[in-house]
Amino acid sequence: MMPKAPILLMAPLVLFAHSLMPVPAKLQPGVGRLRIDQNFAFVQLTGYREPRLEAAAARLVEDVARKTGIPMRPGVGLHAPSAALIVYCDHAGTAVQSAQEDESYRLTVTAVGARLDAPNPLGVLRGMATFLQLVDLDSSGFGVPAVTIEDHPRFPWRGLMLDVARHWIPLADVKRTLDGMAAVKLNVFHWHLSENQGFRVESKLFPKLQELGSDGEYYTQDQVREVIAYARDRGIRVIPEFDLPGHATAWFVGYPELASGPGPYQIERQWGIFDPAMDPSREETYQFLDAFIGEMAALFPDEYFHIGGDEVNGKQWDANPRIQEYMRAQGIKSNEALQAYFTRRVQAIVAKHGKKMIGWDEVLTPDMPSSILVQSWRGPKALADAARQGVSGILSNGYYLDLGYSAAYHYAVDPLGEAAANLTPEQKQRVLGGEACMWSEFVTPELLDVRVWPRMAAIAERFWSPQNVTDVADMYRRLEAVSRDLEGLGLTHVFEYEKMLERLAGGSAAAPVRTLAAVVEPVKDYAREAAHPYDKFTPLNRLIDAARPDSETVRRFAALVDHMSAANMPQIRAYLTEWRDNQARLAPVLENSALLAEDEELSANLAAMAQAGLEALDRLQNGPPRDPAWIAEKRALLDRAKQPKAELLLSVEPAIRKLIESAQ
Amino acid sequence: MMPKAPILLMAPLVLFAHSLMPVPAKLQPGVGRLRIDQNFAFVQLTGYREPRLEAAAARLVEDVARKTGIPMRPGVGLHAPSAALIVYCDHAGTAVQSAQEDESYRLTVTAVGARLDAPNPLGVLRGMATFLQLVDLDSSGFGVPAVTIEDHPRFPWRGLMLDVARHWIPLADVKRTLDGMAAVKLNVFHWHLSENQGFRVESKLFPKLQELGSDGEYYTQDQVREVIAYARDRGIRVIPEFDLPGHATAWFVGYPELASGPGPYQIERQWGIFDPAMDPSREETYQFLDAFIGEMAALFPDEYFHIGGDEVNGKQWDANPRIQEYMRAQGIKSNEALQAYFTRRVQAIVAKHGKKMIGWDEVLTPDMPSSILVQSWRGPKALADAARQGVSGILSNGYYLDLGYSAAYHYAVDPLGEAAANLTPEQKQRVLGGEACMWSEFVTPELLDVRVWPRMAAIAERFWSPQNVTDVADMYRRLEAVSRDLEGLGLTHVFEYEKMLERLAGGSAAAPVRTLAAVVEPVKDYAREAAHPYDKFTPLNRLIDAARPDSETVRRFAALVDHMSAANMPQIRAYLTEWRDNQARLAPVLENSALLAEDEELSANLAAMAQAGLEALDRLQNGPPRDPAWIAEKRALLDRAKQPKAELLLSVEPAIRKLIESAQ
Repeated sequence: MMPKAPILLMAPLVLFAHSLMPVPAKLQPGVGRLRIDQNFAFVQLTGYREPRLEAAAARLVEDVARKTGIPMRPGVGLHAPSAALIVYCDHAGTAVQSAQEDESYRLTVTAVGARLDAPNPLGVLRGMATFLQLVDLDSSGFGVPAVTIEDHPRFPWRGLMLDVARHWIPLADVKRTLDGMAAVKLNVFHWHLSENQGFRVESKLFPKLQELGSDGEYYTQDQVREVIAYARDRGIRVIPEFDLPGHATAWFVGYPELASGPGPYQIERQWGIFDPAMDPSREETYQFLDAFIGEMAALFPDEYFHIGGDEVNGKQWDANPRIQEYMRAQGIKSNEALQAYFTRRVQAIVAKHGKKMIGWDEVLTPDMPSSILVQSWRGPKALADAARQGVSGILSNGYYLDLGYSAAYHYAVDPLGEAAANLTPEQKQRVLGGEACMWSEFVTPELLDVRVWPRMAAIAERFWSPQNVTDVADMYRRLEAVSRDLEGLGLTHVFEYEKMLERLAGGSAAAPVRTLAAVVEPVKDYAREAAHPYDKFTPLNRLIDAARPDSETVRRFAALVDHMSAANMPQIRAYLTEWRDNQARLAPVLENSALLAEDEELSANLAAMAQAGLEALDRLQNGPPRDPAWIAEKRALLDRAKQPKAELLLSVEPAIRKLIESAQ
Repeated sequence: MMPKAPILLMAPLVLFAHSLMPVPAKLQPGVGRLRIDQNFAFVQLTGYREPRLEAAAARLVEDVARKTGIPMRPGVGLHAPSAALIVYCDHAGTAVQSAQEDESYRLTVTAVGARLDAPNPLGVLRGMATFLQLVDLDSSGFGVPAVTIEDHPRFPWRGLMLDVARHWIPLADVKRTLDGMAAVKLNVFHWHLSENQGFRVESKLFPKLQELGSDGEYYTQDQVREVIAYARDRGIRVIPEFDLPGHATAWFVGYPELASGPGPYQIERQWGIFDPAMDPSREETYQFLDAFIGEMAALFPDEYFHIGGDEVNGKQWDANPRIQEYMRAQGIKSNEALQAYFTRRVQAIVAKHGKKMIGWDEVLTPDMPSSILVQSWRGPKALADAARQGVSGILSNGYYLDLGYSAAYHYAVDPLGEAAANLTPEQKQRVLGGEACMWSEFVTPELLDVRVWPRMAAIAERFWSPQNVTDVADMYRRLEAVSRDLEGLGLTHVFEYEKMLERLAGGSAAAPVRTLAAVVEPVKDYAREAAHPYDKFTPLNRLIDAARPDSETVRRFAALVDHMSAANMPQIRAYLTEWRDNQARLAPVLENSALLAEDEELSANLAAMAQAGLEALDRLQNGPPRDPAWIAEKRALLDRAKQPKAELLLSVEPAIRKLIESAQ
């Protein structure tokens, strides 16, 4: 019954408007549709079996039930004799998930059944994620369109780094994040566990790390094991990061002797780069790290261990005569060389405990063994340098989720782009993939999903799908679908956003706040820090905190302006009228909300721009040509209105500018 | 610093537009406002201390932080020396929370601090719920308006019955429900644990009850203890109900010998009233119940134990010659008398295990001891009869959340209304309060919050607040605020509603679905069962399942029509235009959604009614008088349009009718 697909097409978006994200490597549309109703019997596991597969099958049944609202009959679900989705897994995976494991699968759906084949459990998990995304509703009911998919990832390393140290992220939020990651086929959860602002894991050998360095906000070792098992069930590796020798103030609260400067230390409450750094000149530092890394290497099964290594400013080393004397005695000429010396010592400790070391760009020095892995926050050039040196790397530069960039911006970044594009094929093999980074200066549990999702899904596609899958409009179309799917799985990026807007409205009608929020986006890069004093206790409850880097409203409006016609002018007018009139509707809300007061000018600018856009539209539809003075005045208005206010940009400005320029 | 309030006013809604629900017994507005920012230091516990109070204080800090988005500094929260909310608890409560316990509190807020005084921990919990509701945002920031509140409940028994048997409700959903209950000062969680469709608690003595009677969907005894502890922490009693002798098919799957008819039995999958009933003629039945009730009485600490007792049709008794013979031998003349005999035996067993029995109306017979409690599903007359007989009772008739009635409908029902209003003061004391009932034929975990909230809050006010608090418009104003607060606490009635509408839209724009959903309401009473075949596996994913019994949109529109003026006519026109035009916007969505197809006529009727409303508005604003033929035609249209379609009513029909009639 299962036809072999004769010819497979690359990313056949035109033929078949599926909503898969990431786009599979090969997809061949079929004929017909597999119906899913309350009599649908799935899923039957065949071939190699293990508890992870049983759990995945049970989750799939539950997820399909939740997506469709169709309950499954007891006994008709798992192991049904007439299963409508038959899964064949050829063999077991590795005991500890590795970056080399095969994640490929083949999924065939016809009108009468579906079959998922994979060499090992990881492929089954990926194929099930695809099946769940394929479930949709049409005029005949819920079902899955007939299709043959042969799929495998482009990169073996597809990750998300989550900083749980600057702001604490509780266990439930971590698990929810893993649910989202699995849905878009990510496979590495990089857990940034220590920082100046907190040490987040229980150490039984050095309990003062968490007792004095965490405000009580840390994971017990049992909880760590729970997260690792939860992640493994979803085909996700867990890599811990303990940032050394800088970013380590929280360690020094309990163990000041590790630091290069005199104590005592307190948990850091500010954001930024700070002076405290471990003392590379004392053998006791390495003894401590040997014991500590040994303890953590036993707790975290992954073959990689991340030691950070970024942003040491060297001031404590400069100021410590004993360290200066040590450098002279050892012939170490610079702080960079001192850090390199420290990193080699730490690398040896990591290797002794059976792990491969990962570090940020700074750890790459000419004499590092090629077993290490470089995570580049600086850019593709560092990756290319590493690859030429025989060292593997992953890209994070361009994938920082905290910097307010759009999904399209991140989507355009390729781990094999820029400097890495010129590598030899062999060198390119050393670029293993990438990781998005969620640094948490501006992230609380409430904001986590709002910041990570749905943009993370677009980056996941970059890591998984063929390099030529680059259509931004189609990406956004599918991103809307995957965003709904993610909410269905329990992610809260829409829910929390709405609740934040309700809070901003303070009991007044939230609709005008929603209208304003839909056309603003955050300032980019590190402009937030520059605009406002922030620390750990600054409330993150302003419009800038809710603001999305991607606005569906602005995309729709810009598309109308880009393809302006008599037919779509009424829609353009409706948008502009709504924005012009929103000022009056928002006024009583602004008046009663201390949180919104700062956004008054933004709202006024939106109204003024919209009024100018309406004047331009009048001209285009039936008016006399606008004189140069009008244009000059409107340009000046737009130039003013595009300036950041309250850390926000009016993202609708370019489209309105285009409209106004076209009225000339 | 804490002024004594000299004069306290009853429900001073006009003086002070607070959003408290339930309204406190006495409230005196003060001058000024207590500011809440990141330096706010609370809460300090004084007087009697216990872990429950520490936990409550920690939750309050967390809830205020979540409501405001303001993080609390470590060490500045609990036990801060300069606490801004000082709590004084006089003494301990009872070891097991009882219906007689004092729940009163006094809360005084000034611009410089707040003080909460209560005789015992329950009052502290109620006062903290009030404090949290008082936190709001104004032009100066977050804070609490100065106020003095002296509060206590009108009724000691304020409950929610949740049927977890017909549809299974997992532990997390139960806990979330308890969070919501605590927020509106409810104090009884009545857990309907067994039914024809499922037996939901682990019995260690009779394991086949859950093994064969639950499809694996039951609470372990550890989970039951977890819920009881969770509830106690929130000032809520947990009363189990095991429904006897009818509604018990699920028991008979594992223990067919308990039944009056021959087995074997299967878990019931249909809804309705069924024949199987326990055999009152065999001593083994009572021996089983003695052991079982003994086990459950030890598991559930509350002094009350609910044995159901409703809806026995007697057919199995009629058909069993041995039972007929037993009745003759014992001189039992009717099935009612046989059930009364059974109930007296069960009551003796319940009493032997140290509990007071609760049952539905049917258990009240003249020879019942006055220690029992009657829960009336039939109406106030049963309560009045019980009270005259010296038996206490609680009202559930009028508070069935599954029947599609509005908050206003339930709000108008008073436990001391109708027949109970004529009781003597002493008899009235026997009406202890009421319980809302959430029967779960049409409730899944996804739908639970959509069905319970926010209406439950209005009923909670009926149980707590003075009898003269009856202003429906003000109730709805406050209900909107409490609904937002509940979402902030993690309830999902808005979130799941939105997700259901997205599902109905099936990937198309959800906005026109939202517009239609906002003006429909479910059919009432038991009309759903009559309209459509339902059983346990029927998908509950249609518009009727999402539909809210209360429409904010319809209330606003109706208020505009009720107070029609030149000033509000543009708003009326805007609503009508949106509804008229929604038909065209919804058409492409309807076409692609098998779930929505049944709602096409509803949408067409809405458009036609809106068009008629617009014509009426034209007449009112500037047109010629409408002729009688026009009126007759529109009346006919309205008569058609108000008929149920797809189990839904167009709730906007009466307001449009009023508009049209006024155009005559």
